[in-house]
Amino acid sequence: MLFAVRMQVDLPDMDPNARRDLLREEREYSQELQRGGEWVHIWRVAGSYANISVFDVTDGDRLHEILWNLPLFPYMSIEVTPLATHPSDIRAG
Amino acid sequence: MLFAVRMQVDLPDMDPNARRDLLREEREYSQELQRGGEWVHIWRVAGSYANISVFDVTDGDRLHEILWNLPLFPYMSIEVTPLATHPSDIRAG
Amino acid sequence: MLFAVRMQVDLPDMDPNARRDLLREEREYSQELQRGGEWVHIWRVAGSYANISVFDVTDGDRLHEILWNLPLFPYMSIEVTPLATHPSDIRAG
Amino acid sequence: MLFAVRMQVDLPDMDPNARRDLLREEREYSQELQRGGEWVHIWRVAGSYANISVFDVTDGDRLHEILWNLPLFPYMSIEVTPLATHPSDIRAG
Amino acid sequence: MLFAVRMQVDLPDMDPNARRDLLREEREYSQELQRGGEWVHIWRVAGSYANISVFDVTDGDRLHEILWNLPLFPYMSIEVTPLATHPSDIRAG
Amino acid sequence: MLFAVRMQVDLPDMDPNARRDLLREEREYSQELQRGGEWVHIWRVAGSYANISVFDVTDGDRLHEILWNLPLFPYMSIEVTPLATHPSDIRAG
Amino acid sequence: MLFAVRMQVDLPDMDPNARRDLLREEREYSQELQRGGEWVHIWRVAGSYANISVFDVTDGDRLHEILWNLPLFPYMSIEVTPLATHPSDIRAG
Amino acid sequence: MLFAVRMQVDLPDMDPNARRDLLREEREYSQELQRGGEWVHIWRVAGSYANISVFDVTDGDRLHEILWNLPLFPYMSIEVTPLATHPSDIRAG
Amino acid sequence: MLFAVRMQVDLPDMDPNARRDLLREEREYSQELQRGGEWVHIWRVAGSYANISVFDVTDGDRLHEILWNLPLFPYMSIEVTPLATHPSDIRAG
Amino acid sequence: MLFAVRMQVDLPDMDPNARRDLLREEREYSQELQRGGEWVHIWRVAGSYANISVFDVTDGDRLHEILWNLPLFPYMSIEVTPLATHPSDIRAG
Repeated sequence: MLFAVRMQVDLPDMDPNARRDLLREEREYSQELQRGGEWVHIWRVAGSYANISVFDVTDGDRLHEILWNLPLFPYMSIEVTPLATHPSDIRAG
Repeated sequence: MLFAVRMQVDLPDMDPNARRDLLREEREYSQELQRGGEWVHIWRVAGSYANISVFDVTDGDRLHEILWNLPLFPYMSIEVTPLATHPSDIRAG
Repeated sequence: MLFAVRMQVDLPDMDPNARRDLLREEREYSQELQRGGEWVHIWRVAGSYANISVFDVTDGDRLHEILWNLPLFPYMSIEVTPLATHPSDIRAG
Repeated sequence: MLFAVRMQVDLPDMDPNARRDLLREEREYSQELQRGGEWVHIWRVAGSYANISVFDVTDGDRLHEILWNLPLFPYMSIEVTPLATHPSDIRAG
Repeated sequence: MLFAVRMQVDLPDMDPNARRDLLREEREYSQELQRGGEWVHIWRVAGSYANISVFDVTDGDRLHEILWNLPLFPYMSIEVTPLATHPSDIRAG
Repeated sequence: MLFAVRMQVDLPDMDPNARRDLLREEREYSQELQRGGEWVHIWRVAGSYANISVFDVTDGDRLHEILWNLPLFPYMSIEVTPLATHPSDIRAG
Repeated sequence: MLFAVRMQVDLPDMDPNARRDLLREEREYSQELQRGGEWVHIWRVAGSYANISVFDVTDGDRLHEILWNLPLFPYMSIEVTPLATHPSDIRAG
Repeated sequence: MLFAVRMQVDLPDMDPNARRDLLREEREYSQELQRGGEWVHIWRVAGSYANISVFDVTDGDRLHEILWNLPLFPYMSIEVTPLATHPSDIRAG
Repeated sequence: MLFAVRMQVDLPDMDPNARRDLLREEREYSQELQRGGEWVHIWRVAGSYANISVFDVTDGDRLHEILWNLPLFPYMSIEVTPLATHPSDIRAG
Repeated sequence: MLFAVRMQVDLPDMDPNARRDLLREEREYSQELQRGGEWVHIWRVAGSYANISVFDVTDGDRLHEILWNLPLFPYMSIEVTPLATHPSDIRAG
């Protein structure tokens, strides 16, 4: 099922190398899930260190597993909105 | 450019026929913009008379024109979030 | 999957008979879903015309279908929280 | 009586061993109260370091004693909602 | 157990006689519960059509029964805060 | 006159002895004012490091003097609600 | 003692004569209390149908009596802030 | 023109001498502006490290210059409300 | 001096002719003040029946006079932010 | 297209030289964009370390690029409001 997720990042002061590594891990983690088809969309919120994403996962357990293991999870505020098919969606059956 | 838009609907009491017509016009209006490629995504917010949509339009004037002319606009609360390309998006350039 | 749902009811003035019928339909609708195993828990919020419920449904589409068809839906404010298994839950796998 | 409780955890930076011990104590504390029948339900909020729980305790003094002694209490924001029997609950007398 | 309750009243336009009767019933209902020892304190919030009260009742079911049956309940917003004994209270223990 | 006061405590990390002394001073300060009749009620908010209190003081200057000199004042968020006699209070004149 | 009070007015549709009379009564009521020395200051909030006022009254009972009897009270949202002497005030003691 | 200003102070831990000097400078700065007629009123908010003040200055540039140069400015949250003459003010022309 | 003003419009159901006249009066009123130099900027908030404007007026009394006399004032929620010259503004003296 | 942007600055304690350099870089960065025509307006919010600005940029990607590269970006809270032409604007086509 689909979930819209808004992630807001608030990084503390950090050693520049540790920070670079952390951001690289985050990117790789996200891109692997995008290639796997579970992380369907990711957009930057213009003007904020934040993204709006859409996930397509089996259930809440899998969604939580994905988000909990984000390398940036300890520095994020996350809002989850469960989605359903919209009756006006031209791609809906 | 891309905008995420959340529309919350609060319909007053209405003659059932007027209501049916209004909802049909809303669906046709939305689907025409979906087919035209400006209304890129529409999802129902599970449990609410609301949707989360993504628009791809030339600018704020066109976005406003589209939203202002929604048949349900007088009954909606609308939040607009301007988007940008996310550096981790595997589909980005 | 599991969802926690808070429903707040705000009934307008209504003919007493229409109101009685509406509340009876709501109770029957709820109890049928409870007996079917999808509406797992329902508690009254002490001091409010509100409930906190837990649903166990296949996905967001089914959750939305259930909530949208509540006889009291037009008079409700609904908040949905997707749940996952807690690692400390003694009943978890 | 029943209380719904939402606990949000915000752990500061901590020595990894101290953190592991703290989380083990929290789990043991929770599971002992679950086995004792006072901590009736515990669910993870998908995407957050948070849980939604239901407690069945004699009164507010006992509820406060349980929550105040949580090993993670100093790092938690807690919201308490007192519950009552819902008239539509099929398990209610 | 003890609960602090804040009740905010928002009366619609009403026939003056109906209003007078309603307010008389509210006062009698409150005073009967005060004499019975369950409605322990009631204070007016200065400048508002609101009160802050303290109830001493057996549990959430009884609290809800009392509040739900307030003649003004349909016109009230109610916040409930469950209380416990404070360790500095000179009347405790 | 009467004031309802809600005090929320957020203690920083502190030397255990300094913390113990501070909490002892807070208790003694509170109990002296309780015995003097100005700090009329104090309840713990179940599940929070917070209290709801009622003060009976000559005016705002005296209320501020009492609260400003609380040993925990630098670590508190305080909300003050001025009260008046409620017309339904059976103890009112 | 002194109270800062913010009054926000939200008038419903009304017969123009009834409205004119109501506003005249409100002005006379306010000015009588200003001349009596209890309503010390009144300022318009620029751009809003609202005022910020300062009252000097004996206690919360008198403040509530004054505000409750405002002709516009049924159409107002009122916030009350109890004041104390500021130690930097050059007019203080 | 007149502005109502609410200043909330949140002082970090500080060397006691530095703190004493800072508070003395703040008082002197405030009193000089009070004597000059631009800082017209200052009241303590009972129970908070906050004040409500009224300024009479030529324009927004002067108001900002005064507030920006407050010795406590880096530790303050400030809300500004522009005022206008109230038509019921007995001192208004 | 300069003020930023956000006006949100919420029109009730209205006779179409009365509505058309009202909107025409609003436009003429706004354009006259724009031509006079006091209403410096007006932008539509994309997706809302709202505008963000900048006014250059002598003081709060004049600002209030302008806003209070807007034909749509009874249907508006208005937020006013007083402005000052920014030290980085290349057009500042 | 046009965006209104509100930037609120919250600088941590910093070496005075590092702070001076940072603020100089911020000013130069802002002024270069002002001269280039993309940063159209910048006003100080009176009484706050904040500004309200208007940007005229090609799209959300360019807006985000500008804001993300602000030297003060890590210390800012930023709100973005997409704008459209207002039908009453006398300068609109």
